[in-house]
Amino acid sequence: MILRDPVHGLVAFDGADARVVPALLDTREFQRLRDVRALGVASMAFPGAEHSRFTHGIGAARVMARLLARVEPLAAELGVPLSPQDHDDAMAAALLHDLGHGPLSHLFEEVFPGMPTHEAWSSAAILDPDSGVHRVLASRDAGMPARVERLVHGIHPIPLLARAVSGTLDVDRCDYLLRDSHMTGARYGLFDLDWLLRALAVERTAAGARLAVDGAKGLPAIEGYFLARLFMYQQVYFHKTTRAAEAVLRGVFRRVADLAGEGRGPSVMPPTLARLARGEALSSVEYLRLDDTVLWSAVSAWCDDPDPVLASLARRCRARALFKTAPLDGVDSAYDDEIADAMRACVRAAGFDDRYHASLDVVEVVPFESASTDDEALRVLHAHRAPEPIERASFVLSRLAGTSLVRRHLIFPAEARDAVTKLVASRRDGA
Amino acid sequence: MILRDPVHGLVAFDGADARVVPALLDTREFQRLRDVRALGVASMAFPGAEHSRFTHGIGAARVMARLLARVEPLAAELGVPLSPQDHDDAMAAALLHDLGHGPLSHLFEEVFPGMPTHEAWSSAAILDPDSGVHRVLASRDAGMPARVERLVHGIHPIPLLARAVSGTLDVDRCDYLLRDSHMTGARYGLFDLDWLLRALAVERTAAGARLAVDGAKGLPAIEGYFLARLFMYQQVYFHKTTRAAEAVLRGVFRRVADLAGEGRGPSVMPPTLARLARGEALSSVEYLRLDDTVLWSAVSAWCDDPDPVLASLARRCRARALFKTAPLDGVDSAYDDEIADAMRACVRAAGFDDRYHASLDVVEVVPFESASTDDEALRVLHAHRAPEPIERASFVLSRLAGTSLVRRHLIFPAEARDAVTKLVASRRDGA
Amino acid sequence: MILRDPVHGLVAFDGADARVVPALLDTREFQRLRDVRALGVASMAFPGAEHSRFTHGIGAARVMARLLARVEPLAAELGVPLSPQDHDDAMAAALLHDLGHGPLSHLFEEVFPGMPTHEAWSSAAILDPDSGVHRVLASRDAGMPARVERLVHGIHPIPLLARAVSGTLDVDRCDYLLRDSHMTGARYGLFDLDWLLRALAVERTAAGARLAVDGAKGLPAIEGYFLARLFMYQQVYFHKTTRAAEAVLRGVFRRVADLAGEGRGPSVMPPTLARLARGEALSSVEYLRLDDTVLWSAVSAWCDDPDPVLASLARRCRARALFKTAPLDGVDSAYDDEIADAMRACVRAAGFDDRYHASLDVVEVVPFESASTDDEALRVLHAHRAPEPIERASFVLSRLAGTSLVRRHLIFPAEARDAVTKLVASRRDGA
Amino acid sequence: MILRDPVHGLVAFDGADARVVPALLDTREFQRLRDVRALGVASMAFPGAEHSRFTHGIGAARVMARLLARVEPLAAELGVPLSPQDHDDAMAAALLHDLGHGPLSHLFEEVFPGMPTHEAWSSAAILDPDSGVHRVLASRDAGMPARVERLVHGIHPIPLLARAVSGTLDVDRCDYLLRDSHMTGARYGLFDLDWLLRALAVERTAAGARLAVDGAKGLPAIEGYFLARLFMYQQVYFHKTTRAAEAVLRGVFRRVADLAGEGRGPSVMPPTLARLARGEALSSVEYLRLDDTVLWSAVSAWCDDPDPVLASLARRCRARALFKTAPLDGVDSAYDDEIADAMRACVRAAGFDDRYHASLDVVEVVPFESASTDDEALRVLHAHRAPEPIERASFVLSRLAGTSLVRRHLIFPAEARDAVTKLVASRRDGA
Repeated sequence: MILRDPVHGLVAFDGADARVVPALLDTREFQRLRDVRALGVASMAFPGAEHSRFTHGIGAARVMARLLARVEPLAAELGVPLSPQDHDDAMAAALLHDLGHGPLSHLFEEVFPGMPTHEAWSSAAILDPDSGVHRVLASRDAGMPARVERLVHGIHPIPLLARAVSGTLDVDRCDYLLRDSHMTGARYGLFDLDWLLRALAVERTAAGARLAVDGAKGLPAIEGYFLARLFMYQQVYFHKTTRAAEAVLRGVFRRVADLAGEGRGPSVMPPTLARLARGEALSSVEYLRLDDTVLWSAVSAWCDDPDPVLASLARRCRARALFKTAPLDGVDSAYDDEIADAMRACVRAAGFDDRYHASLDVVEVVPFESASTDDEALRVLHAHRAPEPIERASFVLSRLAGTSLVRRHLIFPAEARDAVTKLVASRRDGA
Repeated sequence: MILRDPVHGLVAFDGADARVVPALLDTREFQRLRDVRALGVASMAFPGAEHSRFTHGIGAARVMARLLARVEPLAAELGVPLSPQDHDDAMAAALLHDLGHGPLSHLFEEVFPGMPTHEAWSSAAILDPDSGVHRVLASRDAGMPARVERLVHGIHPIPLLARAVSGTLDVDRCDYLLRDSHMTGARYGLFDLDWLLRALAVERTAAGARLAVDGAKGLPAIEGYFLARLFMYQQVYFHKTTRAAEAVLRGVFRRVADLAGEGRGPSVMPPTLARLARGEALSSVEYLRLDDTVLWSAVSAWCDDPDPVLASLARRCRARALFKTAPLDGVDSAYDDEIADAMRACVRAAGFDDRYHASLDVVEVVPFESASTDDEALRVLHAHRAPEPIERASFVLSRLAGTSLVRRHLIFPAEARDAVTKLVASRRDGA
Repeated sequence: MILRDPVHGLVAFDGADARVVPALLDTREFQRLRDVRALGVASMAFPGAEHSRFTHGIGAARVMARLLARVEPLAAELGVPLSPQDHDDAMAAALLHDLGHGPLSHLFEEVFPGMPTHEAWSSAAILDPDSGVHRVLASRDAGMPARVERLVHGIHPIPLLARAVSGTLDVDRCDYLLRDSHMTGARYGLFDLDWLLRALAVERTAAGARLAVDGAKGLPAIEGYFLARLFMYQQVYFHKTTRAAEAVLRGVFRRVADLAGEGRGPSVMPPTLARLARGEALSSVEYLRLDDTVLWSAVSAWCDDPDPVLASLARRCRARALFKTAPLDGVDSAYDDEIADAMRACVRAAGFDDRYHASLDVVEVVPFESASTDDEALRVLHAHRAPEPIERASFVLSRLAGTSLVRRHLIFPAEARDAVTKLVASRRDGA
Repeated sequence: MILRDPVHGLVAFDGADARVVPALLDTREFQRLRDVRALGVASMAFPGAEHSRFTHGIGAARVMARLLARVEPLAAELGVPLSPQDHDDAMAAALLHDLGHGPLSHLFEEVFPGMPTHEAWSSAAILDPDSGVHRVLASRDAGMPARVERLVHGIHPIPLLARAVSGTLDVDRCDYLLRDSHMTGARYGLFDLDWLLRALAVERTAAGARLAVDGAKGLPAIEGYFLARLFMYQQVYFHKTTRAAEAVLRGVFRRVADLAGEGRGPSVMPPTLARLARGEALSSVEYLRLDDTVLWSAVSAWCDDPDPVLASLARRCRARALFKTAPLDGVDSAYDDEIADAMRACVRAAGFDDRYHASLDVVEVVPFESASTDDEALRVLHAHRAPEPIERASFVLSRLAGTSLVRRHLIFPAEARDAVTKLVASRRDGA
C-alpha cells in the first residue's frame, strides 16, 4: 500500500506494516475522520490549516512504522524483543488514536453536560462489535480490540509501546507538530524527524524495552522536538484569532444548548445533536455520525434562525466577524476575575448578552513535562557514563524544565473594544 | 494584511494590494469557499488533497500581486502603463475567479438539467447587489463589479490583464498547479514560480501591454510550467481512483435526481438541492448556501435511505468502497461504444443497475494549447532577433505542440471485475 | 556510519552497506576528491556550484544502497538473487566511479596530447596495489579490485548491476542531477527520487536480474528524471557563462602547454603538470596528486608570469573577466566553419591571439537515448499486457526519442563584441 | 543582476541594490573568496560544508537588500530616513564583511606571531588604493572606502546600519546560519528569514533609526533565530570531529612555523607563507594571494616532506586520519590543566610529540548576549505598552539570557585512546 503525503512524502505500508493498516483505513469509522479537521477553527487564523484527522492518523501510523523499524532490532539485541502481535497492536493504535474525536475540537462537547470524552468514544468505537474497526481487529485475533483500546490510551505492559503511542515523545505529537506546522505555514514545528528517529535508543527494564535517547548524537533532535512543540503552542494553538474563533463557536453551541434546554429551538437541528441535547445515551455508531460537515451545515442553517442571538452568532462564524481579544500581559493575574467581571459589564453595555459574547481565556502549556514516574522519564544513554534524565543532559531543556507558559486574554465583541482596552490599560498601570 | 500559507509562505497584501483584498476576504461569499474543496474527491486517491478553493483564491491573488509587481514597471517603461484601477480589478478578479464554484467539482451539477454553470454563478454573485462581494466592489467605484465580472472570465481591453486572469499562463493555473502538487504530495507540479515571474516580459500592442517571455532567461521556467501541468493531469487529475470516486458520487446524485424526479425521495434532502431538483430558479445568495458540508452531510444521511440503490451508493462513498477501473490502452478507440455496452451487460449480470454503476470514462488534455488568436499567443522576446512564438523557441514545447493526451477507462463495481478484465483483454488481443 | 548531506539528508551506511563504504571513504584517493569540484568552472555562472566529487561519490553510493534495498527482494523473488559479493561490488563501484577524475573537468587534459582518460586513471587507481583503495578492496577478496574496476565502467555479467552503475538510468546520474540542481539553485533537476526508486521493477533474463519500470505507478517518476536531465543540460551544463569560463581556462592550459613545449616557461609549474607536459608516464599515485588546489594555485601564480599572454589569461580567470558569447541560433550550421574563421579574424583585429582567445563551441545532448542493445533498453512492465519499451509507453518520452538538442556559440573577448555581433547578424539575415 | 543560490533561490540585485554590488563582485579580491571555504575543515565532519565565503558574502548582501527594503520605509515614516549613500554603504559592507578572511579559518594565523587579524586585513584591502575593491568604492565617491571600512566593523553613526552589519541580529549571521545549516545538512539553523524580516521594526533615536522588533508578530521569528544559532554551535561549530580536524591542521602549521623558525624547512613553501614565517610585513594585495588552494596544495606537498613529524601530520589531514576526542563532561573544570598535563604524558608515552599532537580544547558560546550598551539592545515594540528588552518579552530568551554553553575536550592520537579514556574516567569518578 503506497500513498503520497504532503508531510512525509511517499508513505508505504509494506510487509508487517501492511497487516492491519490497509484494512483499518477502509472502515467507515476511520474514513469519517476525513471530515474532522485536525485544528478545528484554527484555519480562521491560518487558512492553510484545513487538514483532517484522517491524514494525521495515517501520518501517526507512518511515524510508528519508522519508529518500530528503528527500535525493534535494538530491543531484540537487548533480549527484550517485540512480537509480531506487539507490532500490529502498535500500528493499529497509532492509526486509531483519534478515532472517537468529535467535530470542531470538542467545542460543542463542552456545552452538553454529561458528554463522554473523545477518549471514551474512541474506546467505545474500538470495542463495539458493530464497528468496522472492531471487525477488522477481531478478525486478526479475538483479544486485539481490547489490547488496542488500552494501548490507544497509553496503557501497555511494555513501556516502549505505551510511551510511543502516548508519552512525552510519541508518534501522535511527532506527526501533528510536523503536519500542523507545515499546513499552517508556521514552520516552527519542523524538527528533524529523520534524525530524531535515528536518535532513539532502547533500555532494557524488567517490564521490557523502554525508549531512550542515544547520547552520542541524539540530543539536538530531541531538543528540537520540544522547542518545536513550545513554538507551536505560542504561535498556533494559542493564537488570539484561533481563541477568538473558538469563543464565537462556543457561544453558538451554548445558545443552541440553552434553546434546546428550554424547548425553544433551534429551527434546524441535526438528529444526533438533538439527542445529545436531550441527554440521551448514544451508541458509538450513532455518535460517529457527527462530523464537521454535520455541524458546519447546521451553523449555516442557523444563520437564518428565528432566534436573533443564535442567528447573529452563526453569521459571525460564517463571515469571519470574530470577537476581539485583549492580552492581559503586564496585568497581575490576581485581578483576573475582577477584570473579567468588568469586561462583562462593558459587553452588556454594548448591547450583548455576556453569557455568549464574553470570556476570560486562560491557556497554559508546560514546555517540558518532568516525568512523574520512572517509566515516563526520557533518559539519555552515554558511552562511558551512567544514563541521565534528558532534562539534565540537555542545556536547553534544563532551562525549560519546571517552567510553564501561560497566555491570558479577554475576548469580547468589537463593539466593546474601546471600553475594554481602557479597562485593561487602567489595570496595567495600576498593577 | 499578513497570512501564512503552506505553498507561498509569508503572504502579505500591502500597499496597493491591500486596497480590495482584505475587505473581499471577509465577505460571506468568499468565506464560503472554505467549505468547497479544490480537488473534490481526489482526496480518495491523494489523502492530503484536502485544501479548499478559499486558500487557492488567496494564492491566486498572491501570484497576481507578484505578477503585477513584475510587469507594471515594464509596461510603464513601454508607455502602456496599468492604472491603479486596473491593478485593483486584477487583484479582485484573481481572488474571486472561483467564487461561484459549486461543491464537489460540478458532480451534482451534471445531473440537474438546466443548471447554470459555475462561471454563471460567479457572475451572478459579483453582480448581485445583495452580495457582500458586490457591496465591497461597488463601494470603491460603481463600475467595478461589472469590470471584475468580465475580467473573471478573461475579458478585458488590456491583453495582459485578460490573459493573466485566464490564459495559457495565468495566476489561477500557477497557484493550483503548485498547490495541488504540494497537497497531493505528487510534487511534479512544482515549477519554479520565482523564476517564472522573473521571466515575464511585456510587449506593447495597440490595445496596451501584453504578456511575453524574456528570451534571455525565461524559457526553462515557462517550459517547466507546461510540463508540470501535463504531469499533474497524468498523475492526479486523471488518476484512476479519482475517476472511480467521481463515478460513484455521480451515481449518488443521479439516483437522487431520479428519485426526486419521480417524487419518491430521498428521505433527507437539503432545501437548496430540493429546489434545484424541482428545477426552480435560485438567486446567487440562495445557490451559494450549497457547499461541501451540505452535500457530504446529505450523503451521510443517505447511507440510511430506504432506497437500497441510493443507500448502497452513499455507503460506498463513506467507506471508500469505490468502483474499479480498467484502462483501454491498447484497445482501438473505435470500439469504445461497443466495449462500453458489453461492460454494461457485465455489470447488470453482476446484479447492478448500470445507469448508476457503470461508465466509460474518457478524458483529454492538450499539453500546450496553440494560440487561436494573436492576443493569446505567448511570444518570446530576443535581444538581437525578432520575437517568436514560444512553441517555436522551445525545444520541448515544439515537440508537444499539437499533441493531445487521452485516457480511457471502463468503470464498474468490483463484482464485475473478472468479466470486464476478460472483455478488455479479448478486445486488446483482437485489436 | 551516519552522515548528513544537503541533498539526501541523513545518510546512513548500515549493515551490508557498511561492509566496504567506510573503509573506502578514508583512503587518500577518495579523500582527494574533496578537492575536485564536480562542476568545474560552472560556479562562475552558478556561484553555489562549489560541491566536490567527494560528496557526489557518497551520494551515488547512497542512491545505490537505496536502489539495492528496492531491487534485491524483487530479484530474489524472481529466482535471480544478488549475492553479498554483488552487493559489495555495487556499493564500491558506485562510490568510486569518479575516482580518477582530473581537476577542472578535463580542461587541462585536452591540451596535453596522449593523456589517459579519467576512466583509465580510475582503473589504474583501483588496480594499483599501492593505492589505499586497492588495499581495502583486496582485503575483502582478491578478485574484488578487478571486478569493481570493470563495474565502474558498466561491465558486469548481471545486467542490473552493470546498468545501475552506468546506464540510461544510473545512480551516478540520479545523484548528480539532484546535487547539481540543488547546488546551482537551478531546481529543474529535482525529480522525485523516492518515487523513482519505488518505480523500479526487475525482469528475469538469462544473464540474471535486469532493471525495469513498474507500469502501474512508475512512469511519471522516470519521465521526470529524463526531463530533469534535459533541463540541466539546457540550463546549467550548456550555460553560456560556463562555456565562456571553460574557454578562458582552456586558453590558459593551451598557453602553458605551448610554453612548456617550447621550453619557455611558465615560471611556476606544479611538478606533476611539468611531467605531463614533458609527456612522461605517471603512476596513478603520482597522477592523483593533481587536484583543483594544485591547478588553481598555479593559475594564481601565473597571473604574475612574465609571459603576457599567460598572465592576462590567468588574470581573466581570477577576476572573472570572461570571454563573451554569441549564440548561433537562426544561423545555418553549414556556415559554422566559415563564420568561425571570420570571428577569428575579428579577434585578431582586436589585438588577441585567436589560438587562445577564440572558439566555436558546439555542444549536444540526446534527451532520451534509444537503447542500442536489448540489455540497455528500459522496459515498462504491465499487469495484463506484455512489457514495452519506455519510449513507447511514455507520452512525453515518445515525443523526445530520437531528438537531439544542439547549442552553438562563438566565444571571444569583449573587445571583439561589436564586430562579432555584426558578423552573426549578417549571417542570420542572410540565412 | 540575477543569480541563483541554493539558500536564497533567485537572488536579484536590481535598482539601488545594483549600484555597487555587481562591480564589487567582479574584483579580484572578492573573487578570491571563492577559494576560502566558509567552514574550514568542518567538511571533515559534514561533507556537504564545502561552500565558500564568496557565496556567503553574496548571501549577506542579499539579506541586507531585503532588510533595507523592509526598514527604509519605516525609518522614513519616523522622520529618520536612510540616504542613498547609506544604502550603498550598507550593501557594500554586507558584501565585503569577510574580505580579508584568511584561508582555513584562521588556523595558520594562530601560529605566526604578530599576524594582523582578518579584520585588519579587511580594512587594509578596502583602504589600499591598489585594490580593485577600493577602486570601485572610490569611483562612486572619495569618502566611500573609509566609510565602508568602518561599517564593516560595525561602526556607523546610524545605529540601525551599524547593528545590521555587525550586531546581535545581523545580516552576516542571518546568512551563515541558514547557509551552514543547509550545507552541512544539520537543518537546525533553518529559522524563518521571511518572517524575521517582516518582524523588524524601527525606533527613532537621537542618532537616527535603530532596529527593533514588532511585538505583535515578531517574537517567534527572533527567538527562532537565536535558538538556531545555539543549535549550530552545539551541533556543527563545536562538533568533535571539526575540533579534531582543526587540532591536526594546527599541528601542521605549528610544525611548519617551528621548522621555518629553525631554518630547517619545510621543503616546499608557498612564497607568501614563507614571508609570514619570516615575520615580514605584507601588503594586503600580497596577503590576499593566500587562499585555501595555496595552503591545501602545500599540505599535499608536505605529505612527502623529509621531516617525519610534518609528513605524518600532513598525511593525517589528507587521508582524514584525525585525532580522537574525549569530552570532559562530568569532570570538574578546576582539574582541566592537571588532566591536560596527564594527557600530554599519555601522548608522549604513545610516541608522539605532544606539542603537535595533544590539546585541551575549550570552546564557549553565549546563546543570548545581553546588550552592553543601549544601542545594542534589541527592544520589542508593543501596541499599547512601553517597549521592553527582548530578553524580558520572550519566554525562551528570558531563560537563556545570562547563560553560557561550554564544551571541553581532550584531543590526542588514537594510539593514546585507552590511556586517555581511563584517565578521564578516573577523574570523573573522583570528581
